[in-house]
Amino acid sequence: MTRAGGLFVAFEGGEGVGKTTQIAAARAWLVASGHEVVATREPGGTALGARLRAAVLDPDGAVTPRAEALIYAADRAQHVETVVGPALAAGAVVLTDRYVDSTLAYQGAGRGLTVPDARVVTDWATAGLLPRLTVLLDLDPRIGLARAAARSAPDRLEAASLDFHDAVRAGFRALAAADAGRYLVLDAAADPDELTAAVRRALEPLLD
Amino acid sequence: MTRAGGLFVAFEGGEGVGKTTQIAAARAWLVASGHEVVATREPGGTALGARLRAAVLDPDGAVTPRAEALIYAADRAQHVETVVGPALAAGAVVLTDRYVDSTLAYQGAGRGLTVPDARVVTDWATAGLLPRLTVLLDLDPRIGLARAAARSAPDRLEAASLDFHDAVRAGFRALAAADAGRYLVLDAAADPDELTAAVRRALEPLLD
Repeated sequence: MTRAGGLFVAFEGGEGVGKTTQIAAARAWLVASGHEVVATREPGGTALGARLRAAVLDPDGAVTPRAEALIYAADRAQHVETVVGPALAAGAVVLTDRYVDSTLAYQGAGRGLTVPDARVVTDWATAGLLPRLTVLLDLDPRIGLARAAARSAPDRLEAASLDFHDAVRAGFRALAAADAGRYLVLDAAADPDELTAAVRRALEPLLD
Repeated sequence: MTRAGGLFVAFEGGEGVGKTTQIAAARAWLVASGHEVVATREPGGTALGARLRAAVLDPDGAVTPRAEALIYAADRAQHVETVVGPALAAGAVVLTDRYVDSTLAYQGAGRGLTVPDARVVTDWATAGLLPRLTVLLDLDPRIGLARAAARSAPDRLEAASLDFHDAVRAGFRALAAADAGRYLVLDAAADPDELTAAVRRALEPLLD
């Protein structure tokens, strides 16, 4: 869904798949091409979101699956209403690091809520706003987690079991398979420059 | 709804209506009568909830209505799953300071979400758990806010306009009118001891 000339693109995938790198690269060529770009993230893309992110990622906290899904939804509602929506209305390209699919994959497929159950809350939080394109960076979690571990101490999600991360990956792939026209699925083990080029080939036709 | 011999009672109403006082009084006679009592609150009845409460009540933060409703729902999900549910399962009387009706009245009636819209999220958060009795302490917000102001500096909710607090009060009264058998509506301007006695008369028949 676009709004008033803006273009909304989500980057999704597990831990350590390279979302940050690919968003930075997409931003660079978009800006060089003269586009207004807002690069943002969930959770934590707003001041409220940063406080919520701290509350939910605290590795000492035992957060129930329903509470976790609702916290991410709160962050998302704030993000959509105060960052994404206004930027799209102003005609910007909005690149978000995680969006609805992360909730469906992590809390729906991974944590044992069902995806339809999780979707009740994501639909409510976003009032139905979906990205025009979702770039899924797909990677074996054994590789992604090793990359993430080399970067910093594991947070609560990264410290979850490999079974969980396998279920999350399968969840992302199932979402993409069910709505193929809205997804670009890339093998995140590929060369980063090749990934950037693939994203560019997919986005250029969507830019006015 | 009771679970395994427990009794779930919510105390609802606006700012400064005396919920804390009445819960303490009910707890005292219940304990003296030999009942196991868990007195708790929303938001903030869990460690996670306390962090969320700080995030949402920060008077500097601009929290959208949807985000606010979702944060309260997250607190509630955690509270139901880790405090209320286990206490009811163990046969306790659970007295909660605010529950679902606060979301429906504050975010539904007060903030301009609709009550049915807000109820989608409260139902999801609680998996349908409702109190056997909800004690609504009904009071003109002009009186309640003056009481609350005498106690401490106003938080973000207390600082909202009188129109908002009037809408919240009307919201609570409409909820009680729509499901009278589940509510005890009391005039919170009455003598506190009389209110305690009225609560006791309503609760005693519900105890085993």
